[in-house]
Amino acid sequence: MNRIALGIQYDGTPWQGWQTQPHRQTVQDVLETALQKFLLVPTPTTCAGRTDAGVHATGQVVHFDTDASREVFSWVRGVNAFLPASVAVRWAAEVEGGEQGFHARFSATARTYHYVIHNDAVRSPLWHGRAGWSFRPLDADAMHAAAQHLIGEHDFSAFRAAECQAATPVRTMHAISVTRRHDLVVVTLRANAFLHHMVRNIVGSLIQVGSGHRRGDWIAELLAGRNRELAAPTFSPDGLYLAKVDYDARWGLPSTDGSLPFEL
Amino acid sequence: MNRIALGIQYDGTPWQGWQTQPHRQTVQDVLETALQKFLLVPTPTTCAGRTDAGVHATGQVVHFDTDASREVFSWVRGVNAFLPASVAVRWAAEVEGGEQGFHARFSATARTYHYVIHNDAVRSPLWHGRAGWSFRPLDADAMHAAAQHLIGEHDFSAFRAAECQAATPVRTMHAISVTRRHDLVVVTLRANAFLHHMVRNIVGSLIQVGSGHRRGDWIAELLAGRNRELAAPTFSPDGLYLAKVDYDARWGLPSTDGSLPFEL
Repeated sequence: MNRIALGIQYDGTPWQGWQTQPHRQTVQDVLETALQKFLLVPTPTTCAGRTDAGVHATGQVVHFDTDASREVFSWVRGVNAFLPASVAVRWAAEVEGGEQGFHARFSATARTYHYVIHNDAVRSPLWHGRAGWSFRPLDADAMHAAAQHLIGEHDFSAFRAAECQAATPVRTMHAISVTRRHDLVVVTLRANAFLHHMVRNIVGSLIQVGSGHRRGDWIAELLAGRNRELAAPTFSPDGLYLAKVDYDARWGLPSTDGSLPFEL
Repeated sequence: MNRIALGIQYDGTPWQGWQTQPHRQTVQDVLETALQKFLLVPTPTTCAGRTDAGVHATGQVVHFDTDASREVFSWVRGVNAFLPASVAVRWAAEVEGGEQGFHARFSATARTYHYVIHNDAVRSPLWHGRAGWSFRPLDADAMHAAAQHLIGEHDFSAFRAAECQAATPVRTMHAISVTRRHDLVVVTLRANAFLHHMVRNIVGSLIQVGSGHRRGDWIAELLAGRNRELAAPTFSPDGLYLAKVDYDARWGLPSTDGSLPFEL
């Protein structure tokens, strides 16, 4: 058997998230359907980060095992031929398989997400589905300062969805930055892993700080309190992008810069 | 009667262009439907640039006459309440009406369009519908140099659609720039006005230069030859944005910078 890793990009708007579910159209479904059309046998995949409905990915990574052997570029072109316009394979790599081999989820050492907030009094059709919207003016510097309370290893129960199935609420946040660029506020978060809804719950609470409704140290209080009910509502999926998954260099995957696709 | 000017933004993907046509869903239709819902009387509009099916606008301008009187921000919020997510009023202004008054089309002194080309071996789901795609590597500097042949007042018949209804093929091109930013090539054109398909025909021909299939002076030859059949096919509408319409300062319209909405 050969193990293949793929870099996947998708516009999450038309999809009910990554993971196969009954009666839902998901990215995993269309990817596995495309692989089956290309390989003529059912080919289950495993991903690095199971994104929610409406969430986008520029740097999702998956792996699968197959008896087939193809040139790297043939995996890209061949599978893309069977995918809809909203999903694409961006790169492919043959990786070490077996028990000790590469695993898209368990080999990942860190994930980077971007959250794009369109911050303007009037909604923008060109950001619809691609950014969250806050019509209240946001102070990105205040959001950035408040976000630094989240750096380090913490119990993130305050920002964890009730349905989260993770074994532990402890995660290590490596970095968060909040920057303004024109009428956009971009929140970039890098952690070893994220709980269900964790980014959207953090962004929702940071917006309360940015709009002046809460002081920056409220974020520290929320974190220490571990009570999801005290934090802000889960923010829209529209602005969320899984941008990058880090792996040890020994796996030899193509390096990606984790930037957003529309950095003009 | 009051004359109102509106700044309009739209994602052109779901629409059959600007102008009302039988059996087609157009941006003019939904805007006039929204105005009628808001004002309770039919309200015809006139636009600065009639964009084609699939073409976007960040800086379209329209005007209409009405007996109604509203606060400026009420025009924005009120009309937006009746528009779909893919179309929005971004600003409103009361302008001088009557025979000598402001006219969205005839008062315009220049138009600026951006054409965004996603230039990568592999297609991108997040640019689908929002950018043209060239999988051949493009030399943006060569495209920029070739485009300078088009500056000035010329007969642009070589880049004019057969169905173009303009009275004359003569237009004055003020500026064209071609710049690379990451995996995007952005063509920005400013002219007094454009013929039907003129931007897409120019971009299609510039791509022939950028990919090395043609030399830069081919653009000068095409222009001089005035023969549409010798130029490249009309390029995709996906990457085209009506970004800015210039008017004399005496009309007192809000100034817009004409940048793309996704300049991070």
